Amino acid sequence: MAPKIKDVAKQAGVSVTTVSRVLNGEKYVKDDLKIRVQRAIDELGYTPSHIARSLVRKKTNLIGVIVPDVTSSFYSTILSTIEKTASLNGYNLLVCNIIEDTDKELKYLQVFQQMRVDGIIIMHEKLNDEIRDLINKMSIPIIFSSVKPADQKFISVIIDDYAAAYDATKHLIELGHERIGYIGGDMRDITSGQNRYAGYIRALADHGIALPEAHIRFGDYKTQSGYEMMKEILAQKPHPTAVFAVSDDMAVGAMNCIHDHGLKVPEHLSVIGFDGSQLTEQVRPRLTSMEQPILEMGKVTVDKLLELIEEKEGGPAEDVILQHMLVSRDSCMDVKRGE
Amino acid sequence: MAPKIKDVAKQAGVSVTTVSRVLNGEKYVKDDLKIRVQRAIDELGYTPSHIARSLVRKKTNLIGVIVPDVTSSFYSTILSTIEKTASLNGYNLLVCNIIEDTDKELKYLQVFQQMRVDGIIIMHEKLNDEIRDLINKMSIPIIFSSVKPADQKFISVIIDDYAAAYDATKHLIELGHERIGYIGGDMRDITSGQNRYAGYIRALADHGIALPEAHIRFGDYKTQSGYEMMKEILAQKPHPTAVFAVSDDMAVGAMNCIHDHGLKVPEHLSVIGFDGSQLTEQVRPRLTSMEQPILEMGKVTVDKLLELIEEKEGGPAEDVILQHMLVSRDSCMDVKRGE
Repeated sequence: MAPKIKDVAKQAGVSVTTVSRVLNGEKYVKDDLKIRVQRAIDELGYTPSHIARSLVRKKTNLIGVIVPDVTSSFYSTILSTIEKTASLNGYNLLVCNIIEDTDKELKYLQVFQQMRVDGIIIMHEKLNDEIRDLINKMSIPIIFSSVKPADQKFISVIIDDYAAAYDATKHLIELGHERIGYIGGDMRDITSGQNRYAGYIRALADHGIALPEAHIRFGDYKTQSGYEMMKEILAQKPHPTAVFAVSDDMAVGAMNCIHDHGLKVPEHLSVIGFDGSQLTEQVRPRLTSMEQPILEMGKVTVDKLLELIEEKEGGPAEDVILQHMLVSRDSCMDVKRGE
Repeated sequence: MAPKIKDVAKQAGVSVTTVSRVLNGEKYVKDDLKIRVQRAIDELGYTPSHIARSLVRKKTNLIGVIVPDVTSSFYSTILSTIEKTASLNGYNLLVCNIIEDTDKELKYLQVFQQMRVDGIIIMHEKLNDEIRDLINKMSIPIIFSSVKPADQKFISVIIDDYAAAYDATKHLIELGHERIGYIGGDMRDITSGQNRYAGYIRALADHGIALPEAHIRFGDYKTQSGYEMMKEILAQKPHPTAVFAVSDDMAVGAMNCIHDHGLKVPEHLSVIGFDGSQLTEQVRPRLTSMEQPILEMGKVTVDKLLELIEEKEGGPAEDVILQHMLVSRDSCMDVKRGE
């Protein structure tokens, strides 16, 4: 059994009230009593219950986080930054890794509610009606990070996914590519599915390039699906000279598929990814990618959530849109100059 | 403000006692009262406080997890499995990502204690005296996963790191390699530092191969350090024909360095990794690796911790040693046959 306050009192030879006064840092407690109590606390390994104190303070310093898949390079990096920023501010994380399980998400949101977390961060946007109902009823501050679901009142910390996809596609066009394949996300997702696809389509249209229907596929953001979608695209001859995948993991899957077909990146096929995760530097050729400012996104998410929790004046009233940035590495070839 | 039990009572037009009886699932509550209370609960979005109930039940269903670095492919995968297994058993995770910050770890362990977590999982072994003192005093069940620190009373779920490193080295020897470089871990770590190095040394000795001092370096398990250590090894001519790195991330860094020097894996240099993370399949050539059963390790860690928490008869009294397994992919060449 964990030692209780009365055990401390007994060990120190003082009353429970005295222990309590020492713990609360009250003035006018004699130094020798303080020392005796502190020694008893150390000897017994006593810690005041966070649970009991939470009931009084009405604050738990917990943040609940819903992450779609912690094994993805994007989410593990943003989670790491969220944890770091939260910890620096004295908050601890309850983490739920949902992997497309809405029942689990609903259950976890209820746990967050029961645990009286001070705030919630959600990093996906496939909200079913039950989840939508629940979060709309909650009185806990909620913020979305990297996604912007439709029809909800909460603030998001995101990039402009439409513009970022537009710019990635335009980069390939400016390198002289005209047959540009696309490996998209889940089209039920607005941010990373629909918005990025719309940006791709618009960039092609603005440059007078017809949509290459045979070379457009949709995956689930993971490496394996990038591989499989690329295989289907390569089966459609003539193959494209470039492909844009909307996650780095899928782009790496596509590069591996191209390699396994005896073709070279970028000599035979240019590949551009999306996210700017650490995977871009781990593969050869190094992956050109449309970067989200992942570290900043994690930090700003926590900062904004804390503003909501602490109801600061001038707290966030609207979405925070961070800057995307193309980082050119070795996976795209300039076909105009025949490099 | 979150709705309270008295708000539910008022909304339902019943007494607080009736709401309480419905919530506790007591018999002899009239069906129409149950329906009215349930409707009020739904309308108000009321949830009973987990905090208040924890005080009564003396159980929080929380597990605290200390993970060294969630962005590493090994730790993100094992964390994902730990979360999944915990969740299936009705437990939720408080996650601390320490990144070599012992002050933070100490603070988090104290938070775990104050939060009255039911159990703690620790996935690193660099315990300073303060941390060692604290965990030895705690009355909370603790289990170590993937590591076995020296001089402590807790159970570990691990592989036999010495034997695994021995077998990885022996694999290279059996392929005909005699100049086998080594990129080790932190030698302050017993499990992944000292034990793996000892296995490597012993395998060489057992096969009459002298220790190639010029080709031995120690990194920090991350891709970048694998790259840098490989660079130093390549500067020592003649370079080895094979290199064993004790994490997949470092092995990938080594492969990238070899590639950037205009050399080919495995034609000029064979590379073998350690862990069996998803990175092994994400790179080309695909990485041969000494696999830890990561998913099983995460699951068994939680299973054993739950046995300790629930004080089951026949609960774990000693370490659980899981099987390692060499998975041969495309990064090692048989130099005997000149393949």
